Amino acid sequence: MRGRFLVIEGIDGCGKTTQLNELHEWLPISGIMPRGVKLEITREPGGTSLGNVLRRILLDPDGEYNLEPLTELLLYAADRAQHVSQVILPALDRGDWVLSDRFCGSTIAYQGYGRRLSLTIISQLEEMVTSGLQPDLTLWLALSPEDAIIRIKDRSVDRIENNGIIFLKQVAVGFEKLAHERFWTQIPAQHSKTEVSTAIKGVIGTVFSNLAT
Amino acid sequence: MRGRFLVIEGIDGCGKTTQLNELHEWLPISGIMPRGVKLEITREPGGTSLGNVLRRILLDPDGEYNLEPLTELLLYAADRAQHVSQVILPALDRGDWVLSDRFCGSTIAYQGYGRRLSLTIISQLEEMVTSGLQPDLTLWLALSPEDAIIRIKDRSVDRIENNGIIFLKQVAVGFEKLAHERFWTQIPAQHSKTEVSTAIKGVIGTVFSNLAT
Repeated sequence: MRGRFLVIEGIDGCGKTTQLNELHEWLPISGIMPRGVKLEITREPGGTSLGNVLRRILLDPDGEYNLEPLTELLLYAADRAQHVSQVILPALDRGDWVLSDRFCGSTIAYQGYGRRLSLTIISQLEEMVTSGLQPDLTLWLALSPEDAIIRIKDRSVDRIENNGIIFLKQVAVGFEKLAHERFWTQIPAQHSKTEVSTAIKGVIGTVFSNLAT
Repeated sequence: MRGRFLVIEGIDGCGKTTQLNELHEWLPISGIMPRGVKLEITREPGGTSLGNVLRRILLDPDGEYNLEPLTELLLYAADRAQHVSQVILPALDRGDWVLSDRFCGSTIAYQGYGRRLSLTIISQLEEMVTSGLQPDLTLWLALSPEDAIIRIKDRSVDRIENNGIIFLKQVAVGFEKLAHERFWTQIPAQHSKTEVSTAIKGVIGTVFSNLAT
């Protein structure tokens, strides 16, 4: 049986990484995944050797490459093409489950709503690189930009995070629209780690409850 | 007055680099370029600091990144987006002339005809990254794949050149079609450096003869 593809989306500071680590431990022993099936944890940008090079370029806090918005978009697309072909699809074909920190939604939110690049161009690129692959479940950790800024203010920010509150608000609007259009599951992310984690586990249990038997 | 954009295209081994170096010396003193106008020599992939990083990835003879054909195409597109925005358009806007070693034609020939990627996708990407910019003159150094293979057999070949004669034949077919469709100037490249150079200078002189006055 083909595996399942889960994605976590949300603005910087929403708690994605924390929840991803929690799921990495919990999901394989949750009784939800079929026996013998592995869980592959991955991320964008990144996830392949090329992806890690591109990640350094894209998130470089010094912005030494002075990336044009369109260049940035195309590098994300190149990263995703490699990631889909060499990591996500092979894992799903083996029957394994894949949990990715960001996927196409982030590109629409950050480059479309944040950078104001053409949604038509972004959509053309999405079609090119995914060949129709869509997540079985997207968890959107919904947090207000104001709360997110407070959370990330004490950590060293990368090039994308460094765009300030106005940019982050536009990105948040993008995520909200996407969540409605693509039927994502909204998880309120302003609560404690444990509360958010409990909510996520409940959703996953409900959505995939009939698989483990 | 806006500058002029010249491109040299052709398969590996056709003599592009030699002729580019010759033009770099000759064109500024030829009397063809208007007084005070500079000549910018550039290339794809490359031409920007990002482009040089991407060039190493794309041409890496060991192929350590195991690039998917679509990933390769998107990296070329990212390189071109940056190159057009930060090098070519600013130079033309200053009134300078630009001479580029490869441009969009190479992508269609190598990734379209060579790798058999969708020409529709390539065309969408071309539209995205060029914003309608087209060369004022494209010089196509036409050489048979058999002659090209003989010329490059004694030099260390890069990842793209390493694809063998069948691939190179497909690329050559692509260049031939493009030359007809896009009204490129065909320069027979099997002759001596001096003969080829004389032919190129003659074409440039004819095409741009009324500018210097």
